[in-house]
Amino acid sequence: MNNAPVGVFDSGIGGLTVVREIRRILPHENIVYLGDTARLPYGTKSVDVIIQYSLENMAFLLSRGAKYIVIACYSSTSVALEIVQQRCPVPVIGVIRPGVKRALKVSGSGKIGVIGTSLTIYSGAYEKVFHELSAGSEVIGRPCPLLVSLVEEGWLDHPATRLIVESYLKPLQEDGIDTLLLGCTHFPLLMEVFKKIMGTIQFVDASHEVSKELSRELERLDILSDASTGDLVIYLTDLSMNFKEIGERFLGEPMTNVSRVSLKKAGEGNKKA
Amino acid sequence: MNNAPVGVFDSGIGGLTVVREIRRILPHENIVYLGDTARLPYGTKSVDVIIQYSLENMAFLLSRGAKYIVIACYSSTSVALEIVQQRCPVPVIGVIRPGVKRALKVSGSGKIGVIGTSLTIYSGAYEKVFHELSAGSEVIGRPCPLLVSLVEEGWLDHPATRLIVESYLKPLQEDGIDTLLLGCTHFPLLMEVFKKIMGTIQFVDASHEVSKELSRELERLDILSDASTGDLVIYLTDLSMNFKEIGERFLGEPMTNVSRVSLKKAGEGNKKA
Repeated sequence: MNNAPVGVFDSGIGGLTVVREIRRILPHENIVYLGDTARLPYGTKSVDVIIQYSLENMAFLLSRGAKYIVIACYSSTSVALEIVQQRCPVPVIGVIRPGVKRALKVSGSGKIGVIGTSLTIYSGAYEKVFHELSAGSEVIGRPCPLLVSLVEEGWLDHPATRLIVESYLKPLQEDGIDTLLLGCTHFPLLMEVFKKIMGTIQFVDASHEVSKELSRELERLDILSDASTGDLVIYLTDLSMNFKEIGERFLGEPMTNVSRVSLKKAGEGNKKA
Repeated sequence: MNNAPVGVFDSGIGGLTVVREIRRILPHENIVYLGDTARLPYGTKSVDVIIQYSLENMAFLLSRGAKYIVIACYSSTSVALEIVQQRCPVPVIGVIRPGVKRALKVSGSGKIGVIGTSLTIYSGAYEKVFHELSAGSEVIGRPCPLLVSLVEEGWLDHPATRLIVESYLKPLQEDGIDTLLLGCTHFPLLMEVFKKIMGTIQFVDASHEVSKELSRELERLDILSDASTGDLVIYLTDLSMNFKEIGERFLGEPMTNVSRVSLKKAGEGNKKA
Protein backbone atom coordinates (compact mmCIF):
# COMPACT_ATOMS: atom_id res chain seq x y z
CA MET A 1 0.00 0.00 0.00
CA ASN A 2 1.15 3.51 -0.77
CA ASN A 3 -1.02 6.58 -0.40
CA ALA A 4 1.35 8.94 -2.18
CA PRO A 5 -0.34 10.57 -5.16
CA VAL A 6 -0.32 9.56 -8.79
CA GLY A 7 1.12 12.51 -10.75
CA VAL A 8 -0.48 13.45 -14.08
CA PHE A 9 0.74 16.19 -16.40
CA ASP A 10 -0.49 17.75 -19.62
CA SER A 11 0.24 20.89 -21.59
CA GLY A 12 -3.13 22.25 -20.50
CA ILE A 13 -6.43 21.13 -19.05
CA GLY A 14 -7.36 18.59 -21.74
CA GLY A 15 -5.51 15.95 -19.70
CA LEU A 16 -8.36 16.15 -17.19
CA THR A 17 -10.16 13.65 -19.47
CA VAL A 18 -7.48 11.19 -18.35
CA VAL A 19 -7.92 12.18 -14.70
CA ARG A 20 -11.67 11.63 -15.07
CA GLU A 21 -11.07 8.04 -16.14
CA ILE A 22 -8.44 7.41 -13.46
CA ARG A 23 -10.90 8.61 -10.81
CA ARG A 24 -13.60 6.33 -12.21
CA ILE A 25 -11.37 3.25 -12.26
CA LEU A 26 -9.20 4.03 -9.21
CA PRO A 27 -11.43 6.07 -6.85
CA HIS A 28 -9.10 5.58 -3.88
CA GLU A 29 -6.02 7.11 -5.50
CA ASN A 30 -4.84 10.59 -4.58
CA ILE A 31 -3.98 12.55 -7.72
CA VAL A 32 -1.79 15.59 -8.32
CA TYR A 33 -2.43 17.14 -11.72
CA LEU A 34 -0.17 19.69 -13.41
CA GLY A 35 -1.47 21.58 -16.46
CA ASP A 36 1.19 23.75 -18.09
CA THR A 37 -1.39 26.30 -19.27
CA ALA A 38 1.14 29.17 -19.39
CA ARG A 39 2.99 27.42 -22.20
CA LEU A 40 0.27 25.50 -24.04
CA PRO A 41 -0.13 24.23 -26.70
CA TYR A 42 2.86 21.89 -26.98
CA GLY A 43 1.73 20.58 -30.38
CA THR A 44 3.02 23.63 -32.26
CA LYS A 45 6.41 23.65 -30.52
CA SER A 46 9.70 22.04 -31.46
CA VAL A 47 10.88 18.69 -30.09
CA ASP A 48 13.63 20.26 -27.94
CA VAL A 49 11.22 22.63 -26.26
CA ILE A 50 8.66 19.89 -25.57
CA ILE A 51 11.35 17.70 -23.98
CA GLN A 52 12.53 20.55 -21.77
CA TYR A 53 8.99 21.40 -20.62
CA SER A 54 8.19 17.72 -19.99
CA LEU A 55 11.22 17.32 -17.73
CA GLU A 56 10.22 20.43 -15.80
CA ASN A 57 6.72 19.03 -15.35
CA MET A 58 8.15 15.72 -14.16
CA ALA A 59 10.34 17.53 -11.59
CA PHE A 60 7.33 19.40 -10.26
CA LEU A 61 5.27 16.22 -9.78
CA LEU A 62 8.21 14.53 -8.05
CA SER A 63 8.49 17.53 -5.72
CA ARG A 64 4.85 16.82 -4.80
CA GLY A 65 5.70 13.22 -3.89
CA ALA A 66 4.32 11.39 -6.94
CA LYS A 67 4.71 7.60 -6.75
CA TYR A 68 3.88 7.09 -10.42
CA ILE A 69 3.66 9.55 -13.33
CA VAL A 70 1.15 9.56 -16.17
CA ILE A 71 1.92 11.77 -19.17
CA ALA A 72 -1.57 12.71 -20.31
CA CYS A 73 -0.25 14.91 -23.13
CA TYR A 74 -0.01 13.28 -26.54
CA SER A 75 2.59 15.72 -27.87
CA SER A 76 4.75 15.10 -24.84
CA THR A 77 4.29 11.32 -25.00
CA SER A 78 5.11 11.40 -28.72
CA VAL A 79 8.52 13.01 -28.39
CA ALA A 80 9.55 13.01 -24.71
CA LEU A 81 8.30 9.77 -23.07
CA GLU A 82 11.57 7.83 -23.30
CA ILE A 83 13.76 10.63 -21.95
CA VAL A 84 11.34 11.29 -19.07
CA GLN A 85 11.34 7.54 -18.26
CA GLN A 86 15.16 7.50 -18.26
CA ARG A 87 15.46 10.47 -15.91
CA CYS A 88 12.58 9.69 -13.56
CA PRO A 89 13.08 7.74 -10.30
CA VAL A 90 9.44 6.53 -10.34
CA PRO A 91 7.67 4.69 -13.19
CA VAL A 92 6.19 6.73 -16.04
CA ILE A 93 3.54 5.79 -18.60
CA GLY A 94 2.33 7.76 -21.58
CA VAL A 95 -1.00 7.81 -23.37
CA ILE A 96 0.04 6.19 -26.62
CA ARG A 97 0.94 2.55 -25.90
CA PRO A 98 -2.19 1.57 -23.91
CA GLY A 99 -4.44 2.85 -26.72
CA VAL A 100 -2.44 1.02 -29.37
CA LYS A 101 -2.64 -2.26 -27.42
CA ARG A 102 -6.41 -1.94 -27.16
CA ALA A 103 -6.82 -0.99 -30.85
CA LEU A 104 -4.85 -4.08 -31.92
CA LYS A 105 -7.04 -6.22 -29.68
CA VAL A 106 -10.40 -5.00 -31.02
CA SER A 107 -9.51 -4.57 -34.69
CA GLY A 108 -10.48 -7.48 -36.93
CA SER A 109 -8.73 -6.33 -40.10
CA GLY A 110 -5.70 -4.69 -38.45
CA LYS A 111 -6.52 -1.55 -40.46
CA ILE A 112 -6.59 1.18 -37.82
CA GLY A 113 -7.06 4.96 -38.05
CA VAL A 114 -5.43 7.36 -35.57
CA ILE A 115 -6.45 11.00 -35.18
CA GLY A 116 -4.56 13.66 -33.21
CA THR A 117 -2.81 17.02 -33.47
CA SER A 118 -0.34 17.52 -36.33
CA LEU A 119 2.65 16.94 -34.07
CA THR A 120 1.29 13.68 -32.63
CA ILE A 121 0.56 12.29 -36.08
CA TYR A 122 3.65 13.51 -37.93
CA SER A 123 6.04 12.53 -35.11
CA GLY A 124 5.55 8.90 -36.17
CA ALA A 125 5.20 7.88 -32.51
CA TYR A 126 2.03 5.87 -33.19
CA GLU A 127 3.50 4.00 -36.17
CA LYS A 128 6.52 3.11 -34.08
CA VAL A 129 4.48 1.55 -31.26
CA PHE A 130 2.06 -0.16 -33.67
CA HIS A 131 4.85 -1.84 -35.59
CA GLU A 132 6.66 -2.80 -32.42
CA LEU A 133 3.54 -4.56 -31.10
CA SER A 134 2.24 -5.95 -34.40
CA ALA A 135 4.34 -5.89 -37.55
CA GLY A 136 1.33 -6.67 -39.74
CA SER A 137 -0.96 -3.83 -38.65
CA GLU A 138 -1.75 -0.99 -41.02
CA VAL A 139 -2.02 2.41 -39.34
CA ILE A 140 -3.43 5.46 -41.08
CA GLY A 141 -2.77 8.74 -39.24
CA ARG A 142 -4.83 11.87 -39.77
CA PRO A 143 -4.01 15.21 -38.11
CA CYS A 144 -7.18 17.03 -36.95
CA PRO A 145 -5.94 20.27 -35.36
CA LEU A 146 -9.24 22.17 -35.61
CA LEU A 147 -11.04 19.70 -33.37
CA VAL A 148 -9.09 20.93 -30.35
CA SER A 149 -10.37 24.49 -30.83
CA LEU A 150 -13.92 23.29 -31.45
CA VAL A 151 -13.95 21.37 -28.17
CA GLU A 152 -12.49 24.34 -26.26
CA GLU A 153 -15.17 26.57 -27.79
CA GLY A 154 -17.76 24.02 -26.59
CA TRP A 155 -19.19 23.45 -30.08
CA LEU A 156 -19.61 19.74 -29.54
CA ASP A 157 -22.70 19.42 -31.70
CA HIS A 158 -22.53 22.41 -34.06
CA PRO A 159 -23.22 21.80 -37.78
CA ALA A 160 -19.72 23.17 -38.54
CA THR A 161 -18.23 20.59 -36.18
CA ARG A 162 -19.96 17.78 -38.06
CA LEU A 163 -18.73 19.23 -41.37
CA ILE A 164 -15.15 19.49 -40.11
CA VAL A 165 -15.19 16.00 -38.60
CA GLU A 166 -16.53 14.69 -41.91
CA SER A 167 -13.72 16.42 -43.83
CA TYR A 168 -11.12 14.91 -41.53
CA LEU A 169 -12.56 11.40 -41.28
CA LYS A 170 -13.77 10.81 -44.84
CA PRO A 171 -10.34 9.68 -46.11
CA LEU A 172 -10.10 7.20 -43.21
CA GLN A 173 -13.55 5.86 -44.06
CA GLU A 174 -12.59 5.48 -47.72
CA ASP A 175 -9.47 3.60 -46.65
CA GLY A 176 -11.74 1.08 -44.92
CA ILE A 177 -10.47 1.27 -41.33
CA ASP A 178 -12.40 -0.87 -38.84
CA THR A 179 -11.05 0.85 -35.69
CA LEU A 180 -10.47 4.51 -34.83
CA LEU A 181 -8.05 5.43 -32.07
CA LEU A 182 -8.56 8.87 -30.48
CA GLY A 183 -5.04 10.28 -30.05
CA CYS A 184 -5.79 13.57 -28.33
CA THR A 185 -7.03 14.48 -24.84
CA HIS A 186 -9.87 16.59 -26.26
CA PHE A 187 -11.41 14.03 -28.58
CA PRO A 188 -13.44 11.87 -26.17
CA LEU A 189 -15.85 14.84 -25.96
CA LEU A 190 -16.58 14.45 -29.69
CA MET A 191 -17.33 10.72 -29.48
CA GLU A 192 -21.01 11.21 -30.42
CA VAL A 193 -20.10 13.06 -33.65
CA PHE A 194 -17.44 10.48 -34.50
CA LYS A 195 -19.96 7.68 -34.07
CA LYS A 196 -22.60 9.42 -36.20
CA ILE A 197 -20.14 9.85 -39.06
CA MET A 198 -18.15 6.62 -38.85
CA GLY A 199 -21.02 4.25 -38.05
CA THR A 200 -20.35 0.83 -36.60
CA ILE A 201 -16.56 0.71 -36.43
CA GLN A 202 -14.70 0.26 -33.12
CA PHE A 203 -13.56 3.35 -31.17
CA VAL A 204 -10.67 3.36 -28.73
CA ASP A 205 -10.48 6.13 -26.13
CA ALA A 206 -6.92 6.11 -24.83
CA SER A 207 -7.90 8.02 -21.64
CA HIS A 208 -9.75 4.91 -20.57
CA GLU A 209 -7.00 2.50 -21.64
CA VAL A 210 -4.20 4.35 -19.86
CA SER A 211 -6.26 4.32 -16.65
CA LYS A 212 -6.74 0.56 -16.86
CA GLU A 213 -3.01 0.11 -17.50
CA LEU A 214 -2.22 2.32 -14.50
CA SER A 215 -4.54 0.23 -12.35
CA ARG A 216 -2.79 -3.01 -13.37
CA GLU A 217 0.64 -1.46 -12.75
CA LEU A 218 -0.17 -0.07 -9.29
CA GLU A 219 -1.49 -3.50 -8.34
CA ARG A 220 1.53 -5.33 -9.78
CA LEU A 221 3.92 -3.03 -7.89
CA ASP A 222 1.76 -3.27 -4.76
CA ILE A 223 1.47 0.51 -4.43
CA LEU A 224 -2.33 0.92 -4.59
CA SER A 225 -3.77 3.47 -2.19
CA ASP A 226 -6.06 2.46 0.68
CA ALA A 227 -7.35 6.00 1.29
CA SER A 228 -11.12 6.04 1.80
CA THR A 229 -11.58 8.55 -1.04
CA GLY A 230 -8.92 9.88 -3.35
CA ASP A 231 -8.15 13.61 -3.35
CA LEU A 232 -7.55 15.57 -6.51
CA VAL A 233 -5.22 18.56 -6.37
CA ILE A 234 -4.83 20.62 -9.54
CA TYR A 235 -1.92 22.93 -10.31
CA LEU A 236 -1.94 25.16 -13.38
CA THR A 237 0.94 27.36 -14.55
CA ASP A 238 -1.56 30.04 -15.57
CA LEU A 239 -5.21 30.69 -14.78
CA SER A 240 -6.91 31.95 -17.91
CA MET A 241 -10.33 33.57 -18.01
CA ASN A 242 -12.40 30.49 -18.73
CA PHE A 243 -10.21 27.63 -17.50
CA LYS A 244 -12.82 26.48 -15.00
CA GLU A 245 -15.67 26.23 -17.48
CA ILE A 246 -13.54 24.34 -20.00
CA GLY A 247 -11.74 22.25 -17.37
CA GLU A 248 -14.96 20.99 -15.81
CA ARG A 249 -16.17 19.95 -19.25
CA PHE A 250 -13.12 17.64 -19.43
CA LEU A 251 -13.08 16.52 -15.80
CA GLY A 252 -16.81 15.87 -15.47
CA GLU A 253 -16.91 17.18 -11.89
CA PRO A 254 -16.31 20.55 -10.19
CA MET A 255 -12.69 21.75 -10.02
CA THR A 256 -12.42 22.60 -6.33
CA ASN A 257 -8.75 22.51 -5.41
CA VAL A 258 -6.88 24.59 -8.02
CA SER A 259 -3.69 26.62 -7.49
CA ARG A 260 -1.44 28.55 -9.80
CA VAL A 261 2.20 27.50 -9.68
CA SER A 262 5.45 28.77 -11.22
CA LEU A 263 7.70 26.08 -12.65
CA LYS A 264 11.44 26.22 -12.24
CA LYS A 265 13.93 24.18 -14.17
CA ALA A 266 14.62 20.79 -12.57
CA GLY A 267 16.75 21.14 -9.44
CA GLU A 268 15.73 24.73 -8.67
CA GLY A 269 12.59 23.76 -6.72
CA ASN A 270 9.11 25.16 -7.33
CA LYS A 271 7.15 27.83 -5.64
CA LYS A 272 3.41 28.16 -5.39
CA ALA A 273 2.26 31.61 -6.59
CA MET B 1 16.53 60.54 -41.47
CA ASN B 2 17.16 57.41 -39.43
CA ASN B 3 17.86 54.00 -40.91
CA ALA B 4 17.51 52.10 -37.64
CA PRO B 5 14.81 49.45 -37.89
CA VAL B 6 11.18 49.60 -36.92
CA GLY B 7 10.59 46.84 -34.36
CA VAL B 8 7.40 44.79 -34.55
CA PHE B 9 6.38 42.08 -32.11
CA ASP B 10 3.56 39.57 -31.89
CA SER B 11 2.84 36.41 -29.92
CA GLY B 12 3.39 34.41 -33.09
CA ILE B 13 3.55 34.81 -36.84
CA GLY B 14 0.10 36.33 -37.38
CA GLY B 15 1.67 39.77 -36.90
CA LEU B 16 3.34 39.31 -40.28
CA THR B 17 0.04 40.61 -41.74
CA VAL B 18 1.02 43.94 -40.14
CA VAL B 19 4.57 43.67 -41.52
CA ARG B 20 3.13 43.02 -44.97
CA GLU B 21 1.23 46.32 -44.83
CA ILE B 22 4.19 48.24 -43.38
CA ARG B 23 6.37 47.00 -46.25
CA ARG B 24 3.74 48.01 -48.79
CA ILE B 25 3.33 51.53 -47.36
CA LEU B 26 6.92 52.09 -46.17
CA PRO B 27 9.13 50.06 -48.55
CA HIS B 28 12.32 51.85 -47.45
CA GLU B 29 12.03 50.94 -43.77
CA ASN B 30 14.20 48.25 -42.24
CA ILE B 31 12.11 45.99 -40.02
CA VAL B 32 12.99 43.66 -37.16
CA TYR B 33 10.16 41.28 -36.33
CA LEU B 34 9.91 39.19 -33.17
CA GLY B 35 7.33 36.38 -32.99
CA ASP B 36 7.13 34.78 -29.56
CA THR B 37 6.16 31.41 -31.03
CA ALA B 38 7.51 29.43 -28.04
CA ARG B 39 4.88 31.00 -25.79
CA LEU B 40 1.93 31.59 -28.14
CA PRO B 41 -0.98 32.09 -27.92
CA TYR B 42 -1.18 35.08 -25.57
CA GLY B 43 -4.99 35.22 -25.81
CA THR B 44 -5.49 32.36 -23.36
CA LYS B 45 -3.03 33.71 -20.78
CA SER B 46 -3.55 35.97 -17.77
CA VAL B 47 -2.96 39.73 -17.84
CA ASP B 48 0.18 39.52 -15.66
CA VAL B 49 1.80 36.97 -17.91
CA ILE B 50 1.00 38.93 -21.08
CA ILE B 51 2.50 42.11 -19.57
CA GLN B 52 5.67 40.24 -18.58
CA TYR B 53 6.08 38.69 -22.04
CA SER B 54 5.37 42.04 -23.77
CA LEU B 55 8.12 43.77 -21.76
CA GLU B 56 10.56 40.99 -22.66
CA ASN B 57 9.67 41.38 -26.33
CA MET B 58 10.16 45.14 -26.09
CA ALA B 59 13.61 44.66 -24.50
CA PHE B 60 14.62 42.32 -27.32
CA LEU B 61 13.62 44.78 -30.05
CA LEU B 62 15.47 47.59 -28.24
CA SER B 63 18.56 45.39 -28.11
CA ARG B 64 18.27 45.19 -31.91
CA GLY B 65 18.28 49.00 -32.18
CA ALA B 66 14.57 49.65 -32.85
CA LYS B 67 13.74 53.34 -33.36
CA TYR B 68 9.98 52.76 -33.05
CA ILE B 69 7.99 49.77 -31.80
CA VAL B 70 4.74 48.41 -33.21
CA ILE B 71 2.81 45.94 -31.07
CA ALA B 72 1.16 43.79 -33.73
CA CYS B 73 -0.46 41.52 -31.14
CA TYR B 74 -4.02 42.37 -30.17
CA SER B 75 -3.88 40.56 -26.83
CA SER B 76 -0.72 42.41 -25.94
CA THR B 77 -2.10 45.76 -27.11
CA SER B 78 -5.30 45.12 -25.14
CA VAL B 79 -3.65 44.70 -21.76
CA ALA B 80 0.00 45.79 -21.99
CA LEU B 81 0.25 48.80 -24.34
CA GLU B 82 0.28 51.50 -21.66
CA ILE B 83 2.90 49.82 -19.49
CA VAL B 84 5.14 49.13 -22.50
CA GLN B 85 4.79 52.80 -23.55
CA GLN B 86 5.74 53.94 -20.04
CA ARG B 87 8.85 51.76 -19.88
CA CYS B 88 10.05 52.17 -23.46
CA PRO B 89 12.62 54.84 -24.46
CA VAL B 90 11.31 54.93 -28.06
CA PRO B 91 7.70 55.50 -29.17
CA VAL B 92 5.29 52.54 -29.20
CA ILE B 93 1.99 52.09 -31.02
CA GLY B 94 -0.50 49.26 -30.77
CA VAL B 95 -2.97 47.85 -33.27
CA ILE B 96 -6.18 48.97 -31.60
CA ARG B 97 -6.35 52.78 -31.78
CA PRO B 98 -5.58 53.21 -35.52
CA GLY B 99 -8.37 50.77 -36.44
CA VAL B 100 -10.84 52.48 -34.11
CA LYS B 101 -10.07 55.90 -35.64
CA ARG B 102 -10.70 54.59 -39.12
CA ALA B 103 -13.91 52.77 -38.11
CA LEU B 104 -15.30 55.98 -36.60
CA LYS B 105 -14.41 57.83 -39.80
CA VAL B 106 -16.13 55.42 -42.22
CA SER B 107 -19.18 54.49 -40.12
CA GLY B 108 -22.33 56.44 -40.91
CA SER B 109 -24.47 55.20 -38.03
CA GLY B 110 -21.72 54.89 -35.42
CA LYS B 111 -22.85 51.30 -34.86
CA ILE B 112 -19.64 49.29 -35.21
CA GLY B 113 -18.86 45.60 -34.76
CA VAL B 114 -15.48 44.36 -33.56
CA ILE B 115 -14.29 40.77 -33.85
CA GLY B 116 -11.22 39.25 -32.19
CA THR B 117 -10.04 36.56 -29.76
CA SER B 118 -11.91 36.20 -26.47
CA LEU B 119 -9.24 38.09 -24.54
CA THR B 120 -9.21 41.04 -26.95
CA ILE B 121 -12.98 41.38 -26.82
CA TYR B 122 -13.55 40.74 -23.12
CA SER B 123 -10.63 42.95 -22.01
CA GLY B 124 -12.79 45.95 -22.90
CA ALA B 125 -9.81 47.62 -24.62
CA TYR B 126 -11.81 48.42 -27.74
CA GLU B 127 -14.74 49.92 -25.82
CA LYS B 128 -12.31 52.09 -23.90
CA VAL B 129 -10.69 53.57 -27.01
CA PHE B 130 -14.02 53.95 -28.83
CA HIS B 131 -15.59 55.90 -26.00
CA GLU B 132 -12.49 58.01 -25.55
CA LEU B 133 -12.57 59.03 -29.23
CA SER B 134 -16.35 59.23 -29.64
CA ALA B 135 -18.70 59.09 -26.68
CA GLY B 136 -21.71 58.48 -28.94
CA SER B 137 -20.44 55.41 -30.79
CA GLU B 138 -21.99 52.03 -30.17
CA VAL B 139 -19.53 49.15 -30.23
CA ILE B 140 -20.58 45.52 -30.34
CA GLY B 141 -17.77 43.05 -29.65
CA ARG B 142 -17.87 39.41 -30.69
CA PRO B 143 -15.15 36.90 -29.76
CA CYS B 144 -14.35 34.55 -32.68
CA PRO B 145 -11.64 32.22 -31.35
CA LEU B 146 -12.14 29.44 -33.91
CA LEU B 147 -11.25 31.71 -36.83
CA VAL B 148 -7.60 31.76 -35.74
CA SER B 149 -7.35 27.97 -36.01
CA LEU B 150 -9.17 27.93 -39.35
CA VAL B 151 -6.69 30.42 -40.83
CA GLU B 152 -3.72 28.48 -39.45
CA GLU B 153 -5.15 25.29 -40.97
CA GLY B 154 -5.42 27.17 -44.29
CA TRP B 155 -9.17 26.54 -44.60
CA LEU B 156 -9.87 30.01 -45.97
CA ASP B 157 -12.74 28.94 -48.20
CA HIS B 158 -13.99 25.70 -46.65
CA PRO B 159 -17.79 25.27 -46.23
CA ALA B 160 -17.20 24.85 -42.48
CA THR B 161 -15.40 28.20 -42.40
CA ARG B 162 -18.39 29.91 -43.98
CA LEU B 163 -20.70 28.21 -41.47
CA ILE B 164 -18.56 29.25 -38.51
CA VAL B 165 -18.19 32.83 -39.78
CA GLU B 166 -21.98 32.95 -40.23
CA SER B 167 -22.53 31.73 -36.65
CA TYR B 168 -20.18 34.38 -35.31
CA LEU B 169 -21.33 37.31 -37.46
CA LYS B 170 -25.10 36.72 -37.56
CA PRO B 171 -25.72 38.48 -34.23
CA LEU B 172 -23.74 41.50 -35.46
CA GLN B 173 -25.76 41.56 -38.64
CA GLU B 174 -29.00 41.40 -36.67
CA ASP B 175 -27.79 44.28 -34.53
CA GLY B 176 -27.50 46.35 -37.72
CA ILE B 177 -23.82 47.32 -37.64
CA ASP B 178 -22.65 49.31 -40.69
CA THR B 179 -18.90 48.79 -40.08
CA LEU B 180 -16.89 45.72 -39.04
CA LEU B 181 -13.46 46.16 -37.49
CA LEU B 182 -11.11 43.15 -37.75
CA GLY B 183 -9.42 42.95 -34.35
CA CYS B 184 -7.05 40.03 -34.90
CA THR B 185 -3.89 39.58 -36.97
CA HIS B 186 -5.28 36.47 -38.68
CA PHE B 187 -8.57 37.92 -39.89
CA PRO B 188 -7.50 39.87 -43.02
CA LEU B 189 -7.05 36.46 -44.69
CA LEU B 190 -10.77 35.80 -44.24
CA MET B 191 -11.87 39.10 -45.79
CA GLU B 192 -13.54 37.39 -48.77
CA VAL B 193 -15.72 35.23 -46.52
CA PHE B 194 -16.60 38.22 -44.33
CA LYS B 195 -17.66 40.19 -47.41
CA LYS B 196 -19.78 37.35 -48.79
CA ILE B 197 -21.66 37.05 -45.50
CA MET B 198 -21.92 40.68 -44.42
CA GLY B 199 -22.58 42.22 -47.83
CA THR B 200 -22.08 45.93 -48.39
CA ILE B 201 -21.01 47.16 -44.96
CA GLN B 202 -17.62 48.84 -44.41
CA PHE B 203 -14.63 46.71 -43.31
CA VAL B 204 -11.65 48.07 -41.42
CA ASP B 205 -8.39 46.10 -41.49
CA ALA B 206 -6.30 47.42 -38.63
CA SER B 207 -3.05 46.04 -40.14
CA HIS B 208 -3.44 48.65 -42.86
CA GLU B 209 -4.43 51.46 -40.48
CA VAL B 210 -1.54 50.92 -38.07
CA SER B 211 0.89 51.06 -41.00
CA LYS B 212 -0.53 54.38 -42.18
CA GLU B 213 -0.32 55.73 -38.64
CA LEU B 214 3.30 54.55 -38.38
CA SER B 215 4.09 56.30 -41.66
CA ARG B 216 2.64 59.61 -40.40
CA GLU B 217 4.51 59.27 -37.11
CA LEU B 218 7.91 58.52 -38.66
CA GLU B 219 7.45 61.53 -40.92
CA ARG B 220 6.35 63.79 -38.06
CA LEU B 221 9.37 62.75 -35.96
CA ASP B 222 11.63 63.03 -39.01
CA ILE B 223 12.97 59.51 -38.59
CA LEU B 224 11.98 57.99 -41.96
CA SER B 225 14.60 55.73 -43.53
CA ASP B 226 16.35 56.61 -46.78
CA ALA B 227 17.64 53.08 -47.41
CA SER B 228 17.17 52.06 -51.06
CA THR B 229 15.19 48.97 -50.03
CA GLY B 230 14.11 48.01 -46.54
CA ASP B 231 15.40 44.75 -45.03
CA LEU B 232 13.20 42.40 -43.07
CA VAL B 233 14.81 40.32 -40.33
CA ILE B 234 12.58 37.82 -38.52
CA TYR B 235 13.28 36.34 -35.08
CA LEU B 236 11.10 33.59 -33.65
CA THR B 237 11.40 32.12 -30.16
CA ASP B 238 10.61 28.66 -31.56
CA LEU B 239 10.60 27.18 -35.05
CA SER B 240 7.64 24.83 -35.36
CA MET B 241 7.17 22.29 -38.11
CA ASN B 242 5.09 24.40 -40.46
CA PHE B 243 5.95 27.99 -39.45
CA LYS B 244 7.26 28.85 -42.89
CA GLU B 245 4.19 27.71 -44.79
CA ILE B 246 1.83 29.54 -42.43
CA GLY B 247 4.09 32.59 -42.07
CA GLU B 248 4.36 33.17 -45.80
CA ARG B 249 0.57 33.05 -46.02
CA PHE B 250 0.50 36.05 -43.66
CA LEU B 251 3.53 37.88 -44.99
CA GLY B 252 2.70 37.49 -48.69
CA GLU B 253 6.37 37.03 -49.64
CA PRO B 254 9.08 34.42 -48.92
CA MET B 255 10.50 34.39 -45.37
CA THR B 256 14.21 34.48 -46.12
CA ASN B 257 15.95 35.84 -43.05
CA VAL B 258 14.64 33.85 -40.05
CA SER B 259 16.52 32.99 -36.84
CA ARG B 260 15.54 31.34 -33.61
CA VAL B 261 16.24 33.41 -30.52
CA SER B 262 16.02 32.84 -26.74
CA LEU B 263 14.48 35.70 -24.81
CA LYS B 264 15.84 36.77 -21.45
CA LYS B 265 14.06 38.95 -18.97
CA ALA B 266 14.66 42.67 -19.55
CA GLY B 267 18.21 43.63 -18.55
CA GLU B 268 19.74 40.18 -18.94
CA GLY B 269 20.47 40.58 -22.67
CA ASN B 270 19.43 38.15 -25.39
CA LYS B 271 21.28 35.45 -27.17
CA LYS B 272 20.66 34.09 -30.63
CA ALA B 273 20.29 30.29 -30.55
